[in-house]
Amino acid sequence: MSKKLTSRAEDYSKWYNELVVKADLAENSAVRGCMVIKPYGYAIWEKMQAELDKMFKETGHQNAYFPLFVPKSLFEAEEKNAEGFAKECAIVTHYRLQNDPDRPGKLRVDPEAKLEEELIVRPTSEAIIWNTFRGWVQSYRDLPLLINQWANVVRWEMRTRLFLRTAEFLWQEGHTAHETKAEALTEAETMNNVYATFAEKFMAIPVIQGLKTESERFAGADETYCIEALMQDGKALQAGTSHFLGQNFAKAFDVKFANKEGKQDYVWATSWGVSTRLMGALIMTHSDDLGLVLPPSLAPNQVVIVPIYKTEEDLNAITEVANTIMGDLRSKNMTVKFDNRTTHRPGAKFAQHELQGVPLRIAIGARDLANGTVEIARRDTLTKQVVALSDLTEIIEDLLKEMQDGLFKKALDFRDSHITEVNSFEEFKNILENKTGFISAHWDGTIETEDKIKEITKATIRCIPLEFKEEDGVCVYSGKPSKGRVLFAKAY
Amino acid sequence: MSKKLTSRAEDYSKWYNELVVKADLAENSAVRGCMVIKPYGYAIWEKMQAELDKMFKETGHQNAYFPLFVPKSLFEAEEKNAEGFAKECAIVTHYRLQNDPDRPGKLRVDPEAKLEEELIVRPTSEAIIWNTFRGWVQSYRDLPLLINQWANVVRWEMRTRLFLRTAEFLWQEGHTAHETKAEALTEAETMNNVYATFAEKFMAIPVIQGLKTESERFAGADETYCIEALMQDGKALQAGTSHFLGQNFAKAFDVKFANKEGKQDYVWATSWGVSTRLMGALIMTHSDDLGLVLPPSLAPNQVVIVPIYKTEEDLNAITEVANTIMGDLRSKNMTVKFDNRTTHRPGAKFAQHELQGVPLRIAIGARDLANGTVEIARRDTLTKQVVALSDLTEIIEDLLKEMQDGLFKKALDFRDSHITEVNSFEEFKNILENKTGFISAHWDGTIETEDKIKEITKATIRCIPLEFKEEDGVCVYSGKPSKGRVLFAKAY
Ligand SMILES: [Zn+2]
Ligand SMILES: [Zn+2]
Repeated sequence: MSKKLTSRAEDYSKWYNELVVKADLAENSAVRGCMVIKPYGYAIWEKMQAELDKMFKETGHQNAYFPLFVPKSLFEAEEKNAEGFAKECAIVTHYRLQNDPDRPGKLRVDPEAKLEEELIVRPTSEAIIWNTFRGWVQSYRDLPLLINQWANVVRWEMRTRLFLRTAEFLWQEGHTAHETKAEALTEAETMNNVYATFAEKFMAIPVIQGLKTESERFAGADETYCIEALMQDGKALQAGTSHFLGQNFAKAFDVKFANKEGKQDYVWATSWGVSTRLMGALIMTHSDDLGLVLPPSLAPNQVVIVPIYKTEEDLNAITEVANTIMGDLRSKNMTVKFDNRTTHRPGAKFAQHELQGVPLRIAIGARDLANGTVEIARRDTLTKQVVALSDLTEIIEDLLKEMQDGLFKKALDFRDSHITEVNSFEEFKNILENKTGFISAHWDGTIETEDKIKEITKATIRCIPLEFKEEDGVCVYSGKPSKGRVLFAKAY
Repeated sequence: MSKKLTSRAEDYSKWYNELVVKADLAENSAVRGCMVIKPYGYAIWEKMQAELDKMFKETGHQNAYFPLFVPKSLFEAEEKNAEGFAKECAIVTHYRLQNDPDRPGKLRVDPEAKLEEELIVRPTSEAIIWNTFRGWVQSYRDLPLLINQWANVVRWEMRTRLFLRTAEFLWQEGHTAHETKAEALTEAETMNNVYATFAEKFMAIPVIQGLKTESERFAGADETYCIEALMQDGKALQAGTSHFLGQNFAKAFDVKFANKEGKQDYVWATSWGVSTRLMGALIMTHSDDLGLVLPPSLAPNQVVIVPIYKTEEDLNAITEVANTIMGDLRSKNMTVKFDNRTTHRPGAKFAQHELQGVPLRIAIGARDLANGTVEIARRDTLTKQVVALSDLTEIIEDLLKEMQDGLFKKALDFRDSHITEVNSFEEFKNILENKTGFISAHWDGTIETEDKIKEITKATIRCIPLEFKEEDGVCVYSGKPSKGRVLFAKAY
C-alpha cells in the first residue's frame, strides 16, 4: 500500500508486475521461476476452478489423478511430444540426501541413491496417462474415456513473469479417448467452446476461437484449437488450447480397442488445458492505473462495507446495519465482507479495496444512519451514488450484473477496434507498431513466410479463425496466392 | 468384475489390495511407488476435500500455493526437519534433456544443464513457506497468518501400498504463524479437533485424540497432536496430525515481528495435515468381503436406480418413474444415478454397485410399476425392503442418516471393544497377538523402553490420549514408576 502504481501508459510491463505484487496476488519465490500464489490471488483462481470444474462435469468428464513423474522411457515414446518439451524439463536423478562430510549439519545428494531411470517432472501428462489408458481400454464399450486432472506442471523457463510464464504453474488437463476421429474432433471443439464460454461469461474476456498453424501446434497434436484474447497493450494472449491428437499417442503407447465389428483399432485422442496464466489475462484485460478491476463473477468479495465512525456508539449502530445488509446480500448469493479492522483508517481501506479490485464499496457513516442511506462506489467507473437502504439489495444485484456486462462490452469494443485488415507488408508493420492489436491479413500458408514475418516483426499467426471466410487474395509478405485471412499479433 | 474378493479372514492385506483395484479406486502406475487415483476413488477424495476445505475456511484459514521445489539450502535450514526427511527425498539435479547420440530418437539428460543448487521435491512445505513468511510478517498486526495449501508431496518409500504409503500423495498442509505460544498451541489443538470431527461425522470413523511421544513426533515439532483410528484387523492408523512447531522454523528462517511493546520476537508456528491416506482408513474401517462400504456423506452416488425390464415399453415406464425419483431426491440434496446401461445385465450392475459401496440400490421392475412400489437394498446390512413410491423420498432420507450413524456406531463398538488395559508384559504380548487393537498400558516415559517394546512386539505408542488420567502405576515393560496409561498398537 506504499506509493502509487506505475501507470499503464508509462510502462505497461512494469505496471503489470507491480500490480500483481501490490494487489497481493502473487510473488516470486526463492525457487528460480516459481511463484507463490498469495491467498487473494488463490481465491480468484479457486473461483475459476470451481466454475470450470462444473462445466467439465456438465459435459460428462470425471476428475482423476496421475503421477507427477514420468519415467524417461515413457516420456520419449511419442517423439514429437518429447522433442517439444525436452529442452524445458526438470529431471529427478536421485532419491536420497545424506550428511555432507565437509559441511557439518548440512546435506548433500547421496551418490549411492541414483535412480536407474531418470524421472521427468511432468510438463504435461499425455505420456503417463496414455500409458495408463492402455490398461483401461479393451473394447468400444470402454470408450469414450473423458478424464480431467487438476495438477501442477513444470516447464523450465529462462525468462519468467508472474502468472504469465512460470517454471511451475497450476492447470487442468483434460485427456480423452474415443472410438472415432469424428468424435475426437467434436470433443476438441466442444472443449474449446467451453473455454470460450468461460472466458466470455465469467472472466468477461472476449476471445477469438481458431486453429493454430502447424508451427504453433502442441507438440504431438494433429490440430490445435485455441482461444485468443487481446490485452490492453495490444498484445494477444493465448488463453486456452484444445488439441486433437489423432492416433499419435495411441500408437506410441499401443492403446487399441476392439471396435463394434470386432476389429482392433487405435484409439483417437484429445487433450485440453487452461492454467494460472488465465490470471494474467484477467489482470491485463480489465485493470487500470489504480489497480485491479475484477468482474463480479470472479471477485472473492463482490461487496465490501466500510464503516466511518468517530464513536463506539456509531460503530455499533453501523455494525447493526452492516449485518442486515450482509444477510440480505448473502441470501441472494452475493459475497460481502465487513471491513471493521481497527488497525486501518477508512482512507487506507478505500485504497486497498480499489487496488484489489473489489467491485462495489459501501461506505456507511453517521449521516447515513440518520438518513437511512449508504454510499456505493463502483470500482469500474469510479462513480459514487447515495442510495436508500430499502432499495440496496436490488440495486447491488443490478449493479453487479451491469458491471459484469460492462467490463465485457468495454473489452469487446477495444478488441474489435483493434482487429485491422491490412493488404500490404508496409501497412502490416505500421499497424503492428503504431496501432497494435490483431492484424487480419492474407498468408500463403507456408511455414517459411510465417517464420520470415515473425523474424522481421515479432508477430506470429495467433490463429486461423474458426469463422474463417474464403476470400481470394495475395499473401501480405510473399505476394503468393492466399485463400483467406489469418490473425497475426505480437503475443504474450 | 471378475472373480470374488479374497475374504478379510483369509488375508486382510490381500483383501485390501484387491478391493482398491477392483472397486476402481486406484492402481499402481509405471512410476515406482506412485499411484493413479481413478475417477471413482478421486470422486470420494473430492468429497473429503470439499468438506475439509469448508471446515478450514470456517475456522478462518485461507488457501494459497507455494512452490513444488525447495532449494537444498532452504531445505537444510531447520536441521531436525531436514534430517527427518533427508532419506526420502526426490531430487531434481538437471533442467534439460537432449538427443541421445547413441540411441536415435531417444533422449538423455543434458550434462550441461546441471543445476547449481539441487532442488528437493517437497516432502512437506515448512521450509519454503517459512522462508516466504519472513517477507509477510513485520508486526503483530500481520499476525496470525492462517494458511492452507492443497498439494502433492513426494516421500520416497521403499515399500508402498495404494493410498496407505505411496511415494507421491495428495494432501493439505496448514501452516500458521502466531504472536504467542499459547495461541499457536490453541491452533494446533483446534485443527486436531477439526480432523477428529471430520473423521467421526463425515467418514464415520471413531478416532482417539492424543499427543505423540518424542520419538514419534514430526521432525521439527515441539509437540504433535494426532487422531488415531482402528482398522478391522486390529491395527491402528494415524489419520491426521497437527504440530506445534514452537519457534523452530521462525529461528531457522529468521521470521521476527515487532510485538505490541515494540520489541522484536520470533513468531510461533503450527502445521497440520491429512492426506489421501484417509482413503485407506475409510476403506479398512467399513468395507466387507463383498467390497466397499461407504458412509452416505462420502459416497459419490448415495443411491443408484437399476431398471429391470424385458420390453422397451417397460423401460420407458421405468425411466419415467426413475426421473421422478431422481428429481425428488436431488431436491433434497441427495445424489442419485440411473444406471440404464444397456451393456450390462441387472445382476452385473448389482454386483458392481455392491463392490463399489453405493449405500442404497433401488430396483424397479414391471411388477413394481403395477404396484406403485420399488425395492430398496441397503449396502451396509445387505437387507432389502419393498416400499411404496409415495413414501420413498422420506424413507431414503431416513435410511441414509441411519446408515451414516450405524456405520459410526459399528466402528465405535469395534474400537471400544478393542482397547484393552493390560498390567504385565506377558498380557501385553498376548493381547497384541491374539485380540489385537489398542493396548492401554503404563509406560515409564523413556525412549529406551518405547524402543525395546517396539523391537520385541512391533507395537508403538500411538498416542498419549488427551483424556489421559493421572494414575500411579508401574511400567508394563521396565517396572519403573509411571503416572498413567498410554495407547500401544501395531500400526499402518
Ligand atoms: Zn489502441
Ligand atoms: Zn476382535
